[in-house]
Amino acid sequence: MPSSESSSGRSGLGQVDRPRRGRPRRGPDPERLQEIIDAAATVFLEKGYDGTSTKDISDAVGMLKGSLYYYVRSKEDFLFEIIKRVYDAALVSIQPAVELEGDALTRLRAFVHAHVGFAVKNLTAFTIQLREFERLSPERRLEITAGGDAYLRALRGILKDGQREGVFDEKIDVSFTALAILGQLNSLTQWYRPNGRLSVKRLAENFAGLVITSIASDSAVQSAGGPSKLRRSR
Amino acid sequence: MPSSESSSGRSGLGQVDRPRRGRPRRGPDPERLQEIIDAAATVFLEKGYDGTSTKDISDAVGMLKGSLYYYVRSKEDFLFEIIKRVYDAALVSIQPAVELEGDALTRLRAFVHAHVGFAVKNLTAFTIQLREFERLSPERRLEITAGGDAYLRALRGILKDGQREGVFDEKIDVSFTALAILGQLNSLTQWYRPNGRLSVKRLAENFAGLVITSIASDSAVQSAGGPSKLRRSR
Repeated sequence: MPSSESSSGRSGLGQVDRPRRGRPRRGPDPERLQEIIDAAATVFLEKGYDGTSTKDISDAVGMLKGSLYYYVRSKEDFLFEIIKRVYDAALVSIQPAVELEGDALTRLRAFVHAHVGFAVKNLTAFTIQLREFERLSPERRLEITAGGDAYLRALRGILKDGQREGVFDEKIDVSFTALAILGQLNSLTQWYRPNGRLSVKRLAENFAGLVITSIASDSAVQSAGGPSKLRRSR
Repeated sequence: MPSSESSSGRSGLGQVDRPRRGRPRRGPDPERLQEIIDAAATVFLEKGYDGTSTKDISDAVGMLKGSLYYYVRSKEDFLFEIIKRVYDAALVSIQPAVELEGDALTRLRAFVHAHVGFAVKNLTAFTIQLREFERLSPERRLEITAGGDAYLRALRGILKDGQREGVFDEKIDVSFTALAILGQLNSLTQWYRPNGRLSVKRLAENFAGLVITSIASDSAVQSAGGPSKLRRSR
């Protein structure tokens, strides 16, 4: 959940106090800003955040370094915007799964599909978010995960619901399991390549099969007709 | 498996062609070298590989930068040594699990315990290996995973054995599943803290429970008396 500090726009990006000479007063064009952020993400992915200079970014966008300062104040502002935008968008993408009608098993399956689909579609920014989060200042990190990590909280909520409903093993450690599930899904950033052997749908189905059988209760497995059937149910 | 290039010592580290003036000819002290490598790993973890200078490393070990060149030729040599050493040691640590008498289910459980135990015990170097592997040159990467990734191959071997034995679901995609399991286990580097809530033993048991039920066959689940019993069997 973004803190009020974030929503009041103190991130510094696109918040130019005094417009530079010859520039319109209404601030940077949002589309151009997103293009620049995407370009920065590509450079960060290739060179690593610490190995990237603002010059590398301005070269990648084909702008003079000075002009870049119209959009951003520092390299960390880029990292913050990349991570904040992808984190917030990921949260939006899982919302339908969280709010889905049906038991927690159905919602967890939908969550896995939404998460994997989002990660693959936003692979560069998503990977940066995982790899370089620690490079943000403590204040910036807190700005993104203020009030606790909303993403993890959503997953923990589904797991707890499922325990109450009896579809997930009542004895699994929910906090640990939520981290382990997200860790498993996120590991795709290390080996997934677009146009690889597995389609995105198949990838998500494979993940969902593993995740669901790893925590399903005895009765959920029984009513599915065994773990192999549960693993492949859609 | 290390390539012959690696075993012939062309990594450059500790391989000083012409001993420097006043130095004994027999090369650097292995213990001191390991200390320096460990210190470098700590600095890499904190600052990121790209954000670390050789000066940072020499400061951390309390040596003059010039003296460091007795042990190492470049920053990448440090990264290579950290990763090569921890990768080879991890391979050694899982060997007993791979060679264990018993069915693949028993061996997979032992593999998870060995892997988690090793990762926790070597957390800094293990984390560097995961985070900064891509920062090595293609030649260096190949030197570590020559002939394919031996670690992943060992895990795939256990999975295939288990399919033949009928304890693992014959329809799971072995290549995908091996990556997903390792990804799940390795995600502990993102949140595990020594002296945290979970003991290492409990952590490994929790992981083993998820991993085994995620791929167990119908008959393995049945003979264990249900997924919840299988999840908690030792």
